[in-house]
Amino acid sequence: MRNSNRQWILKKRPVGDIKPGDLELVDSPIPVPGPGEILVRTVYLSLDPTNRIWMSDMEQYMPPVNLGEVMRGGTLSVVEQSNNPDFKPGDIVNTFTGWQEYAVVPFAQKLPPGVPLPAYMSVLGATGATAYFGLLDLGKPQPGETVVVSAAAGAVGSIVGQIAKIKGCRVVGLAGTDEKCAHLVKDFGFDACINYKKENVREALKRECPNGIDVDFENAGGEILDAVMDNLAMKARIVLCGMISQYNATGQMAGTNITNLLMKRARIEGFIIIDYLPRFGEFIAEMAPWVMQGKVKYDTTIVHGIESALPSLDMLFTGKNTGKLLVQVSDEPK
Amino acid sequence: MRNSNRQWILKKRPVGDIKPGDLELVDSPIPVPGPGEILVRTVYLSLDPTNRIWMSDMEQYMPPVNLGEVMRGGTLSVVEQSNNPDFKPGDIVNTFTGWQEYAVVPFAQKLPPGVPLPAYMSVLGATGATAYFGLLDLGKPQPGETVVVSAAAGAVGSIVGQIAKIKGCRVVGLAGTDEKCAHLVKDFGFDACINYKKENVREALKRECPNGIDVDFENAGGEILDAVMDNLAMKARIVLCGMISQYNATGQMAGTNITNLLMKRARIEGFIIIDYLPRFGEFIAEMAPWVMQGKVKYDTTIVHGIESALPSLDMLFTGKNTGKLLVQVSDEPK
Repeated sequence: MRNSNRQWILKKRPVGDIKPGDLELVDSPIPVPGPGEILVRTVYLSLDPTNRIWMSDMEQYMPPVNLGEVMRGGTLSVVEQSNNPDFKPGDIVNTFTGWQEYAVVPFAQKLPPGVPLPAYMSVLGATGATAYFGLLDLGKPQPGETVVVSAAAGAVGSIVGQIAKIKGCRVVGLAGTDEKCAHLVKDFGFDACINYKKENVREALKRECPNGIDVDFENAGGEILDAVMDNLAMKARIVLCGMISQYNATGQMAGTNITNLLMKRARIEGFIIIDYLPRFGEFIAEMAPWVMQGKVKYDTTIVHGIESALPSLDMLFTGKNTGKLLVQVSDEPK
Repeated sequence: MRNSNRQWILKKRPVGDIKPGDLELVDSPIPVPGPGEILVRTVYLSLDPTNRIWMSDMEQYMPPVNLGEVMRGGTLSVVEQSNNPDFKPGDIVNTFTGWQEYAVVPFAQKLPPGVPLPAYMSVLGATGATAYFGLLDLGKPQPGETVVVSAAAGAVGSIVGQIAKIKGCRVVGLAGTDEKCAHLVKDFGFDACINYKKENVREALKRECPNGIDVDFENAGGEILDAVMDNLAMKARIVLCGMISQYNATGQMAGTNITNLLMKRARIEGFIIIDYLPRFGEFIAEMAPWVMQGKVKYDTTIVHGIESALPSLDMLFTGKNTGKLLVQVSDEPK
């Protein structure tokens, strides 16, 4: 065990791109668990586009992280010390202890063995649940319909596309390199993938979705969403899960021409996974077999050391990761 | 009976505001009904914001009116001559024969007596059905929720507000004069009405909707929709019924900041009444008693003569009408 607890502290709210000094890596004492509490060591930290939202004080779905506080983030941890009879050292637990190496918590959800730990942080965690509930509950894809997924090589998008294939849809992804596109078609079964950095997205969507877009799982926003809006099928559903193209924007975020929503009697609906936590069991019951049977595959990009958290976050915005981006903060227990 | 049939013909697609010469009033022969057909005389012609859309060739929910054709419009007519045993002269029928004095049709829906004829063109016609299905089917207002209605003194908006009151909601209207606002509160039971031409709409909505907007029945679009977006309650529903502020716009229609849809898990959904024609019976069964019992009132603004159609259409865009705008093209049958 280390003898200090490195923590990323939010010092300033970033304006536009995050700058050095907006967050600071500090050494703190390792906290001591009180009666009934447990000390956990972070093994994996999830990096997500929404981290950028939490750093800002824009109107959002959770309170922003306060200045001077440890940066918020989803984690997977191992119990180091326990004053709680329900936990013993070595237990693997699902935590939300943020960008730091150690934390004290009163309790945590224990994770059963038998699954590679990164899967709990991606396809069988909040990432997979976001894909699952967003697509099925809001998008309601029907067999034969056309589903478009932006940020398709990302953690959520790649799973959305595979679930849509299971449901019998034509799946068209949008990704930022030819390699990612080839991977999604060849390895993940997408019907087509558009390199949005090379092609005119509006024209490419028209070509790949000749009957229009029935479901759009939107992770990008901005110009990509505008192009989607111009290619909607009647009664289309847009699941507004994220707008990663806009999170570093300064000033008013980009708008979108919504006229076509009216003409096509289409719907766009915001989606945040925290509303679905009570239904997590449903998701695991259906997703775990899909993963076991190889029907849903997942990619993971892992960087190492808590010091990598901030420098790696930008990979999400520049498209340098494929699939789930994790920081391995410490070793998995043997 | 006149000895000619005056018709408004679409000559040019208007750019921006409609200009003289975009449509032309011409004299044509009165058509002669063939075997099985009926000749109808237009009594009332409905003027609607969507007329402006039909004149354009933008992507829309029906084919645009072709150049050289009679302008499209909903009508209420009386049978003048009949070669169809199901109809006799004097029958009142629901027609869609457009901006002209006479037309020949193979058949038409007969309207039962006992109701003032303008009611068929407003509260008990497509206008009322738009309010009814849009609010109840898409907006799903719950008792205690806050419902906002733009263009609230218009034909649809004024009915939406009254149905929302029946459903136990707080109802806040937006209208363009103090007189309209006072009328909606005093006579139609709205809880509040904001004069959008005098007040800062964003601030006024914040004041009148302290718990946020649960349902927005959107007829205006543009800046009003932007202000609504900034005041949404969690899980808000925006029924996108119209965007009258935008129909005369040239170039790209105004966009809207949709970030708040994500943060509030809110929904915006386009709505066109023609999708609900098969359910018209449901609407009449519930609305007719409301009207009879005085729970839903309606305003009508009537102009006279087919020559008034084009000069009067602009009243919808400048807010000069209250409630349903009709052209009385000929006398009601005695």
